[in-house]
Amino acid sequence: MTIQDYEALSPETLATRLGSVDSIRSRLGDPSQWTVREVGDGNLNLVFIVDGPDDSVIVKQALPYVRLVGDSWPLPLKRTFFEYNALVRQEERDPGSVPEVYHFDETQALVVMQFFTPHVILRKSLMNGTRHVTLAEVLGKFCARTFFRGSDLSMPTAKRKADAALFLGNVEICDITENLVFSDPYFDAKMNHHTPGLDPVVAMLRADIDLKVTAQHMKSAFATNAETMLHGDLHTGSVMVTDTETKVIDPEFVTYGPMGFDIGMLIANFLMAYFAQPGHAEAPGARDDYGEWILSVVDEIWAQFEAEFTHLWRTERNGMLYQASLFEDQGHALGAEQARIERLAAIWRDMLGFCGIEMHRRTLSLAHIAEYDTIEDEALRATCEARGLMLGRALAVGRGDVTSMAQVLDLARAINKEDYL
Amino acid sequence: MTIQDYEALSPETLATRLGSVDSIRSRLGDPSQWTVREVGDGNLNLVFIVDGPDDSVIVKQALPYVRLVGDSWPLPLKRTFFEYNALVRQEERDPGSVPEVYHFDETQALVVMQFFTPHVILRKSLMNGTRHVTLAEVLGKFCARTFFRGSDLSMPTAKRKADAALFLGNVEICDITENLVFSDPYFDAKMNHHTPGLDPVVAMLRADIDLKVTAQHMKSAFATNAETMLHGDLHTGSVMVTDTETKVIDPEFVTYGPMGFDIGMLIANFLMAYFAQPGHAEAPGARDDYGEWILSVVDEIWAQFEAEFTHLWRTERNGMLYQASLFEDQGHALGAEQARIERLAAIWRDMLGFCGIEMHRRTLSLAHIAEYDTIEDEALRATCEARGLMLGRALAVGRGDVTSMAQVLDLARAINKEDYL
Repeated sequence: MTIQDYEALSPETLATRLGSVDSIRSRLGDPSQWTVREVGDGNLNLVFIVDGPDDSVIVKQALPYVRLVGDSWPLPLKRTFFEYNALVRQEERDPGSVPEVYHFDETQALVVMQFFTPHVILRKSLMNGTRHVTLAEVLGKFCARTFFRGSDLSMPTAKRKADAALFLGNVEICDITENLVFSDPYFDAKMNHHTPGLDPVVAMLRADIDLKVTAQHMKSAFATNAETMLHGDLHTGSVMVTDTETKVIDPEFVTYGPMGFDIGMLIANFLMAYFAQPGHAEAPGARDDYGEWILSVVDEIWAQFEAEFTHLWRTERNGMLYQASLFEDQGHALGAEQARIERLAAIWRDMLGFCGIEMHRRTLSLAHIAEYDTIEDEALRATCEARGLMLGRALAVGRGDVTSMAQVLDLARAINKEDYL
Repeated sequence: MTIQDYEALSPETLATRLGSVDSIRSRLGDPSQWTVREVGDGNLNLVFIVDGPDDSVIVKQALPYVRLVGDSWPLPLKRTFFEYNALVRQEERDPGSVPEVYHFDETQALVVMQFFTPHVILRKSLMNGTRHVTLAEVLGKFCARTFFRGSDLSMPTAKRKADAALFLGNVEICDITENLVFSDPYFDAKMNHHTPGLDPVVAMLRADIDLKVTAQHMKSAFATNAETMLHGDLHTGSVMVTDTETKVIDPEFVTYGPMGFDIGMLIANFLMAYFAQPGHAEAPGARDDYGEWILSVVDEIWAQFEAEFTHLWRTERNGMLYQASLFEDQGHALGAEQARIERLAAIWRDMLGFCGIEMHRRTLSLAHIAEYDTIEDEALRATCEARGLMLGRALAVGRGDVTSMAQVLDLARAINKEDYL
C-alpha cells in the first residue's frame, strides 16, 4: 500500500471510482443511478451512504489523519486493514452481530459494507429516552462470543498467536487509547478539555495517587495482556439499534488485549448515559424510570455475558487452556468450574478498572460523549459529569473489593443523589 | 529459509563449510588447523567447539527435530533466528552477560559465538558443591535489566510491539513449554516419566484441583501476558560459571511473556538443587552448609533483582507506563514508588507460581534435571524429589499468601526434614 495511490473519495467521485467493482455494482444496480451522502460523524474517517436502485451500502474510508483534530495529527491508512480483519473475525465468532463486508480495498483504505436501516446510533437513543429489547442480550453475548472464540480457550494457539502478531501492527491506533484513555485525564495534557465547573473534582482526581497508579496498571494490562481480539472501541457510539435489532460497528481500534477492556468501556458508557439523564429530562424526574432502565441494561449485559461465557466454557473449551484432559477426563469437572469462576472474577476486576477509567477520559480527555456535551445548562452538565467521575474513581480503585453488579448499581444510584460541586 | 538448503554440520565438514566465513576465519586463523568437537548435551541442538590457532568459538546449529526425542518430533529451524535476535537484545540490555555473536546463518540455522572457557555449566557445580561469588548478583541483575529494558517501562512502545510480534513467531518452541511445563505434569501424559517411588505424591498432586487450576492460570499468563522479552529457559543448565564469572546462554525459548517466568524458573532450579544435596553428599550432612549456600543464592538473586529493578525504575523509566509526567512532574514521586512496589508484588506472585510449576515439571514431565537423575539410590532420589514437589505445590497455590523470600527458604528447610514417602 503506498500513500501515493490513495485518494480520498467524495460524493462526486464515488460512483465513478467504485461503479466498476462487481461486488458493489451487482448489489446496488446501475452506478449512474447511485446517490451518495457523506455522513461521517465520528472522529477519524469518511463515511458514505450509497443508495442504488436495488440496495444501499456503506462506504467507509480512512483519512490519513485524525478527522477530529485535522492533518496536524497523521494516522496511518492501514487501520482499515485491521478493521476489515476484525469485521471478518467478529462475523465468524458472533454471526449477524456486525455489518457484512462486500468489498475491501487496502490501497484506498476503504471497506464497503452492509447498510443498517432504520438503525440509529445507540448513543442517540440514550439521549432520546428510547428502549431496545434485545440490546443487553446481543451486547452481552457479543462480548462473550468474541472474547471466548478469539482466545486460547478456543482457538488453536498457533492461530491465536499469528492473529495477536497481526494486530500488534495496529500500533498508532493503540497509541491513541494508551495516551488519551489512560494518561491524559490524570494530568493537564495538551488536548484535554472539560466543563469549567468541574475544576474542584478534577483537581481532586489528579491529586489522587491511588487512582493514577490504578490507571497505569490498567494501561499496562491493556497494552500487554493479549487475552483475546478486542473490538477496542466498544462504546454506545459503536452500536446501532432498532426496537428489536442491535448491531456492533467500527472495530478499527481492534487489538489483542484483556477481556475486561471492551465490556468495561461498554458499561462505562451506559453509566455515563445514566448520569446524563437529568440533563435530558423533559421535567425534573421525568427520566427516572428511563435511568433505571439503563441500569437494568448494565445489569443484564453482565448477566448475559457471564451466562454465555459459562455456556461456551462448558461446550467449546477446545483450546490449550484448562483442557478437558486435565479436568473432565480426570473426573475433575469441578476443577474446570472453579477455574471458570476464577477467570470470570479476573475479568470482572479488569472490567471495573477499565470502566472507571473510561468514565474519566470521556469527561476530561480529548474525546467526550454527546450525552454530556448536549446538556446546555453548564452547571447541570458539570453536576452530571462530576457524578460520573466519582463513580469512575470508586470502581477503578475499588475493583478488588466491589464484587457484584448490584453493588455497582446501588453506588450509581447513591451518587446520582449527590452534588459534588 | 528453505529446508532444502539446510544441511547439518559434522566435525568432519565444519571447517570446509565455515572456513570461508571472514568473521570466523579472521578470529580463529587458518581453517586447515581447526579442530572440532561436538559437545551438545542439551535436548535440541548440535553444539561444536571449534579450536583454531588463534582462538576458539562455539558453533550452535539447530536440528529439524527434538534431539532428546528424535526425528519423530519435528521442530522448525527458525528457532535459531529467534535465538540470534534474543542474544543481540540481551547483550544490548545487559552488556557482557551473554556470548558475543560472531556470525549468524539463517538458512543453516546456525550461530557462531563466543566460547566461554574455563566456564562450566552451573548445574554441574551445584552437583559438585562448588560456590561462585558473582552468581546471584549477575543473575539478579540480568533478570532486572532484560525485564525492564525489554518492556513498556523503557522501550518505545512501537518497538516493543514490533518485537512482541516478532517473537510470537517462535510458536512451536512455546508450544513445548505450554504443554510440557504447564499441563503434562498434572495428568498421565504420554511423554511423562518419574521415579517409581514417587507414585503416592504424584497421585496426590494430580488429584489436587487447586494446583491444577493454578497451573492453568500460570499457563494463561505465560502465553498472553507479553510484559517483556524473556530468556524463556532460564534454568541452571543455561548458566555458565567460573569462580568469578557468570554467563547466560541458550535463549532459543525466547518469547514475550510475564517477568515472573524467567526468575521463577531460575529460582526453582536452585531450590531443586538444594533438595538434591543429600543425594550428592559425601557423607550424611556433608552438604548441609552447601545447601544453605544455595538458599543464600536464592535469597540474593531476588534481592539483587529487586534492587536493580528499583534502580532502573528510578533512573530509566522512559517508556509509556507510569510516566514521570504523571508522577514526579506533578510532585507525586510517591505515586511512582507505590506503583513500583505494586508491580514488584505482582512479579513476586507470578515468580512463585512459575517456580512451583517448574519444580513439578522437572520431576514429572519429559525433561528432568541432572541433580536428581544422578542420584543412584532410587529411594533417596524419590525422597529428595518428593520434597521439591511438596514445596512446589505450596509456592504455586500459596503465591498470593507467601510474602517474603525468608518464608520461602524457611519452608524449604522445614520440608527438607520431612519424608513424604
